[in-house]
Amino acid sequence: MRVVALLSDFGLRDGYVAQMKGTILDLCPSAVITDISHDVQRHNIPMGSFILETTARYFPKDTIHVAVVDPGVGSARNAIVVECESALFVGPNNGLMARASETLGVKSIHKIRAEEFQRKDVSSTFHGRDVFAYAAGMIASGRRPEEVGPRVSKLETLDLSSPTLLGKKLVCQVLHVDVFGNVITDVGEKLVRNIPVTFGESVEILTGARKLQAQYARSYHEVDRGAMAVLLGSQGFLEIAVREGSARDKLDAKALDKLELRF
Amino acid sequence: MRVVALLSDFGLRDGYVAQMKGTILDLCPSAVITDISHDVQRHNIPMGSFILETTARYFPKDTIHVAVVDPGVGSARNAIVVECESALFVGPNNGLMARASETLGVKSIHKIRAEEFQRKDVSSTFHGRDVFAYAAGMIASGRRPEEVGPRVSKLETLDLSSPTLLGKKLVCQVLHVDVFGNVITDVGEKLVRNIPVTFGESVEILTGARKLQAQYARSYHEVDRGAMAVLLGSQGFLEIAVREGSARDKLDAKALDKLELRF
Amino acid sequence: MRVVALLSDFGLRDGYVAQMKGTILDLCPSAVITDISHDVQRHNIPMGSFILETTARYFPKDTIHVAVVDPGVGSARNAIVVECESALFVGPNNGLMARASETLGVKSIHKIRAEEFQRKDVSSTFHGRDVFAYAAGMIASGRRPEEVGPRVSKLETLDLSSPTLLGKKLVCQVLHVDVFGNVITDVGEKLVRNIPVTFGESVEILTGARKLQAQYARSYHEVDRGAMAVLLGSQGFLEIAVREGSARDKLDAKALDKLELRF
Repeated sequence: MRVVALLSDFGLRDGYVAQMKGTILDLCPSAVITDISHDVQRHNIPMGSFILETTARYFPKDTIHVAVVDPGVGSARNAIVVECESALFVGPNNGLMARASETLGVKSIHKIRAEEFQRKDVSSTFHGRDVFAYAAGMIASGRRPEEVGPRVSKLETLDLSSPTLLGKKLVCQVLHVDVFGNVITDVGEKLVRNIPVTFGESVEILTGARKLQAQYARSYHEVDRGAMAVLLGSQGFLEIAVREGSARDKLDAKALDKLELRF
Repeated sequence: MRVVALLSDFGLRDGYVAQMKGTILDLCPSAVITDISHDVQRHNIPMGSFILETTARYFPKDTIHVAVVDPGVGSARNAIVVECESALFVGPNNGLMARASETLGVKSIHKIRAEEFQRKDVSSTFHGRDVFAYAAGMIASGRRPEEVGPRVSKLETLDLSSPTLLGKKLVCQVLHVDVFGNVITDVGEKLVRNIPVTFGESVEILTGARKLQAQYARSYHEVDRGAMAVLLGSQGFLEIAVREGSARDKLDAKALDKLELRF
Repeated sequence: MRVVALLSDFGLRDGYVAQMKGTILDLCPSAVITDISHDVQRHNIPMGSFILETTARYFPKDTIHVAVVDPGVGSARNAIVVECESALFVGPNNGLMARASETLGVKSIHKIRAEEFQRKDVSSTFHGRDVFAYAAGMIASGRRPEEVGPRVSKLETLDLSSPTLLGKKLVCQVLHVDVFGNVITDVGEKLVRNIPVTFGESVEILTGARKLQAQYARSYHEVDRGAMAVLLGSQGFLEIAVREGSARDKLDAKALDKLELRF
């Protein structure tokens, strides 16, 4: 029994995701298939990367993650398998899987080239089904990841800046805005612990156009209904939230926006 | 093999539901995880309660239902496990699980407090993953529900009125409006059988602002296309439907609205 | 272990799909349940038919497909089981399952009438749960499809025209518009191979109201960003796509529209 977890920007209305699942079950009837998300915005690689990075770590060891946000399908970008200490990633080498892979300890990267790891008639527009799901199904059924093809030396990464903390000023980037309007930054737990601030103190948040007051908190419940909190969120990053409201609306922020926080 | 069924207001776009599933599979690889719904309106406990109540009964005996609509996460509300005759419920003690639990015969209620039934670093904002899914995974893997912590005496309930039938006048409340616009009342099967009405007779429906004519029917097909029917619906409650149309639009009704039906 | 794949127009917000899954798991705990799609537009049988036809073939042999787009629920239409060479279909005999069944080789059709293949109290408005899922659960648990009831001679079909190719003029119909705005026609792979055209040549597309230029291509990447391509798509049909854009918007096309392509 092997868990195969799927992420894509295909949505669930059409048959595309089901065609991937059928392909995997056909090659490996005992596979346990789970969805991560199929509602990644079309071609939004940073959004897919964020969801994959924050979610993959919760799955059992040796889970095979198939991730397909692939504007370059049919072009020269490589289809790869990334073997990590505690998971495998299968998808395009376009930055989507880099942060998740690095979190779980990259061991090797292989290009999917062997014919038996792809459908005989690969559709030029749907590698999600004919290459990625197919290769994942073969590996789930017991084949070794290194059999898929030659080694690749470089895992493509996203062009993201790093957050910087200078005294009480933190410059960072929005990684993701969730469905509740919580604005999740790229400031990881380790850096959060270095911020010279105490729970209950106020924080000033500057976007390009706006300047807002928030409170540094442990949980939403420490601020009033409708008030803004800055806290270490459940995804392992500094997060801006409005209790029973939407920080996205108040900040007018979206993924990849720059923010400045003054503690 | 144990079925674990999930209900939440997290939506499926972000990684939150997948993080719950990963957590459960990590603790119990043989768990069979199924979604009930993750599109409960944010923080809408009555809506979650209705979907859980009407759906849980169809699952196999001993299914573990994890239900998370939890505006009070991080506050003092209890995280509980409700052991019933034919199922288990895991979630916040905020009214969400009361009606479903009572339908399936409550045997005992326990507060989740034992450390081994929660993730080591519980996020203060995501008990769905670190407490509820975690406890469910432990129980699915064979641990006993009473091990999670001390007994709780009271299951919090929703503040819902009861329908009243006086002669040919029925006063009731809307429990749910489904995606087709069917308006489902709180009038259960038993009370429906006491209504002095015959199939084919007309029914007058009064909302606060509107007065409409419908027909008492067995099935949508007994009324004309676009006409309104009152019938015992598939969810076990009296339901108002428009054949191939939307009763919600005609009645302008929403959950918790009061209705009066004159037979 | 038997795969049961579900398609419906119920959406995933209410408990309806989960009630079907609970029913199946209750009758056959080892069933592996997968969703094809539940976002078929309400009562849109051609849309459900397309998704089922293009997806069922990717599932393992002997998969049980339960398909419910059923405006006639409660009326006289038959509930049937279609046994094919490599799969089973369970649903209403209203055209929904015809194309998918024929693709997989129809062997026999049986009407669901035996009482033990239906819930004791069948809801007149939700055969998806009480008849179709119930019968599927029984079959998944080992019962034979022919036990469900008497043979039916005729599989209802959709009233679709056939595409015609005359010289360099192709008259066809839109079968489906996917979530990306790709317009998928009813021109199958075999007919596509007969079109007298070479990759790179231009194609004129005429809708009722518009006339547009496209390029015949192998993959999206052979045309410029925003340009229109005509290609053999991943679903096995001639497809019109706009690279990183929407052909639906450019053509203003929807399912069942007629199109003329001049090569």
